[in-house]
Amino acid sequence: MKGLIKNVKLVRDAESEVMDDGMIIYEGNLITYAGKRTEAQGPFDQIIDGKGCIAIPGLVNCHCHAPMVILRNIANDMKLEDWLFGHIIPIEARLAGDDYYWGTMLAACEMISSGTTCFLDMYLDMEQCAKAVIDSKMRANISKNTLTSDSRIERGTLFDKQGYESFLKEYHGAANNRIRVSMEIHSLYLYDYDRIKESVDLAAETNSTIHIHVLETADEKRSLESKFGKRVLETMEELGMFRVPVIAAHTVHVDDADISFMKDKRIYPVHNPTSNLKLGSGISPVDKMLKEGICVCLGTDGAASNNNLNMIEEMHIASLIHKGVHRDSKLMSARETFRMATENGGKALGFPIGKLERGYLADIVLLDETGFHNVPGSGDPIAQIVYSMQGSDVKTVIIDGETVMRDREILCMDTERIKAEVKRIRKRLEI
Amino acid sequence: MKGLIKNVKLVRDAESEVMDDGMIIYEGNLITYAGKRTEAQGPFDQIIDGKGCIAIPGLVNCHCHAPMVILRNIANDMKLEDWLFGHIIPIEARLAGDDYYWGTMLAACEMISSGTTCFLDMYLDMEQCAKAVIDSKMRANISKNTLTSDSRIERGTLFDKQGYESFLKEYHGAANNRIRVSMEIHSLYLYDYDRIKESVDLAAETNSTIHIHVLETADEKRSLESKFGKRVLETMEELGMFRVPVIAAHTVHVDDADISFMKDKRIYPVHNPTSNLKLGSGISPVDKMLKEGICVCLGTDGAASNNNLNMIEEMHIASLIHKGVHRDSKLMSARETFRMATENGGKALGFPIGKLERGYLADIVLLDETGFHNVPGSGDPIAQIVYSMQGSDVKTVIIDGETVMRDREILCMDTERIKAEVKRIRKRLEI
Repeated sequence: MKGLIKNVKLVRDAESEVMDDGMIIYEGNLITYAGKRTEAQGPFDQIIDGKGCIAIPGLVNCHCHAPMVILRNIANDMKLEDWLFGHIIPIEARLAGDDYYWGTMLAACEMISSGTTCFLDMYLDMEQCAKAVIDSKMRANISKNTLTSDSRIERGTLFDKQGYESFLKEYHGAANNRIRVSMEIHSLYLYDYDRIKESVDLAAETNSTIHIHVLETADEKRSLESKFGKRVLETMEELGMFRVPVIAAHTVHVDDADISFMKDKRIYPVHNPTSNLKLGSGISPVDKMLKEGICVCLGTDGAASNNNLNMIEEMHIASLIHKGVHRDSKLMSARETFRMATENGGKALGFPIGKLERGYLADIVLLDETGFHNVPGSGDPIAQIVYSMQGSDVKTVIIDGETVMRDREILCMDTERIKAEVKRIRKRLEI
Repeated sequence: MKGLIKNVKLVRDAESEVMDDGMIIYEGNLITYAGKRTEAQGPFDQIIDGKGCIAIPGLVNCHCHAPMVILRNIANDMKLEDWLFGHIIPIEARLAGDDYYWGTMLAACEMISSGTTCFLDMYLDMEQCAKAVIDSKMRANISKNTLTSDSRIERGTLFDKQGYESFLKEYHGAANNRIRVSMEIHSLYLYDYDRIKESVDLAAETNSTIHIHVLETADEKRSLESKFGKRVLETMEELGMFRVPVIAAHTVHVDDADISFMKDKRIYPVHNPTSNLKLGSGISPVDKMLKEGICVCLGTDGAASNNNLNMIEEMHIASLIHKGVHRDSKLMSARETFRMATENGGKALGFPIGKLERGYLADIVLLDETGFHNVPGSGDPIAQIVYSMQGSDVKTVIIDGETVMRDREILCMDTERIKAEVKRIRKRLEI
């Protein structure tokens, strides 16, 4: 399979100059050329005319709980603790079987149609999630818990080493390497120290990246510091976490000392601005972390606290809030948030993605810039993407060299059935 | 003309219970019924099947500079003063003739297609703006300056009483009452005190609402307090402004004493969260103003500082930021921001709009809830609109009883020509 995208405005990455007359060639699942229009060496199995479009690397959603789309809009305008323990967890206990599959399939439709090609997920039944990733043709890093599936309700349940190892064996590198496996350790607050230590050691043994919620709320910070008698990041180090890369979702309540501590660690903080705002958790000092050279990524969190999975919206909010809060309009430029949502995400998730460049995987998104809100369309295209554009401007999506959405039609999934299945699940849950 | 919208999920206003099986009847430009499905008394000239849609009152954008769409994305990630005086005003000086008309037409297309049916505008040539409002079929309150058109560059220019009075006579109530006229006094910082006083007296004499930028930046607050020796709102009172209703855009740098001062005044603060964040101006204490019963409205500001005119996005951001900044997820509920964008806007702009209720004007928006980000679609519809929905979910728009957009096609304007004209203007400006 050899593909050509011609006549396209080309945003190769957050730094490079945008090319008005760009061209992309990909062979199999790899980009072989991305640059100015040149004499293309055919024949091509597929030619896409990119006229009126901006080509960007597929967006990378670095913290998601895909099946939570099932719980969209059930609980709003309330505190994280009330939301999580009063509403979400009791309903999650009633999810079962292929609920997780259909939830992930709907999430995949939503992500693809708003420009996301790769995501990092943690939830309850990751077998079902993996099956959905395979069927949806998305790329994903799937975080598997080593504790039993009831572990989010009953603390300190059994450590399931064998379950983790067999999942790793089955899915790490599966689907033409579209899937990588990492280890979920939900947080420091849901489990006993010894259970966490066992998991961390297994992560080190299997060289698995750890995906964890860190310092999301002020209450979490207070209670963990009081429980362990030290800073949360120090507890993580004591547990040996930084022997492997750690993807740390939220990191809202970090101070200057925490940021300084992070500098020589293999840590990828994930900014989830919408969820942190909506749950009243606070605002992560992302601008400071970026200034210190820390590789901060961007994520939507689950749709129950967002309430959608739209990375274009997430870039928009990430670029806006810090400027306003710190009264400094130079903070968090459009290019910085674009880098978080592309290149930085690729680094954290361990895939060669996030740039349109020879040797990178062919995960490509075409954004239609003909809508009213994009006219007149000149100026800075990356600022246009971040400040003006909408998820609905995503026109065509290629993942791993395969066109999964064309002219806003998803090609690889039965979208009407997926919607119907999720509605059926919601009806069964009586919420 | 008698119209029926059937089978629709009905959001009559921010308070009432949402009806799953709703119906709307309108005759001429007035709603005659909005409620549960009942036996409809035909015949109808138009029947719209609202299946899969939520009907809401058209959104009201209470602070806009419509023609600034021409300047979209020319200057990003910079301070208000650099942005305004370094980039925007020098280019504005080169706008002329029907540039303003085409800019307003494009803004109208963008607003209609994202659910806005009525807006308040101030800019340089309001004759051209009025013509575009007439042609676009939108509803608008148009703010006319009493100072010459160069006044934003050359301070203290002539007071043009006759110009204002003839504009008022020609356009107030024009186009079947779709247009109202108010008085622009750009701000307290662009003109001399005596010129402002003349304008304010004329507003009182003609019973005109005043539309003004108030306390947008900390610098503005400092310099005006130093210049006049008192609080900015006290200077406004001294000038006699509160003899008429005052629509005060931004009101970012107001403290508790200012809010207390506002309580018995005819003032409508307008929250412009995106613009205030993007320019680093700060965050208006809207939650406090609402708590004190002040009628706060919502606006996009111009597309040069937003960078679009999407009120659904604006509601989203308004509901999110205050929760995060104050770490209180109960602040600014979805219903509160929805009220700001509908009913409160109607009150400020002087039209009987902002509710779907017998006697209100037939400004109706149908939102398509079949997109992936809306599934499964149950739960709280107003939270769904504010937190999940996108401008692109707007399917059909009725203004003053006339269908101006149907199935996302704008019916009353030559949209391709409008885009081409704005691109031509931008090219001429060489930006």
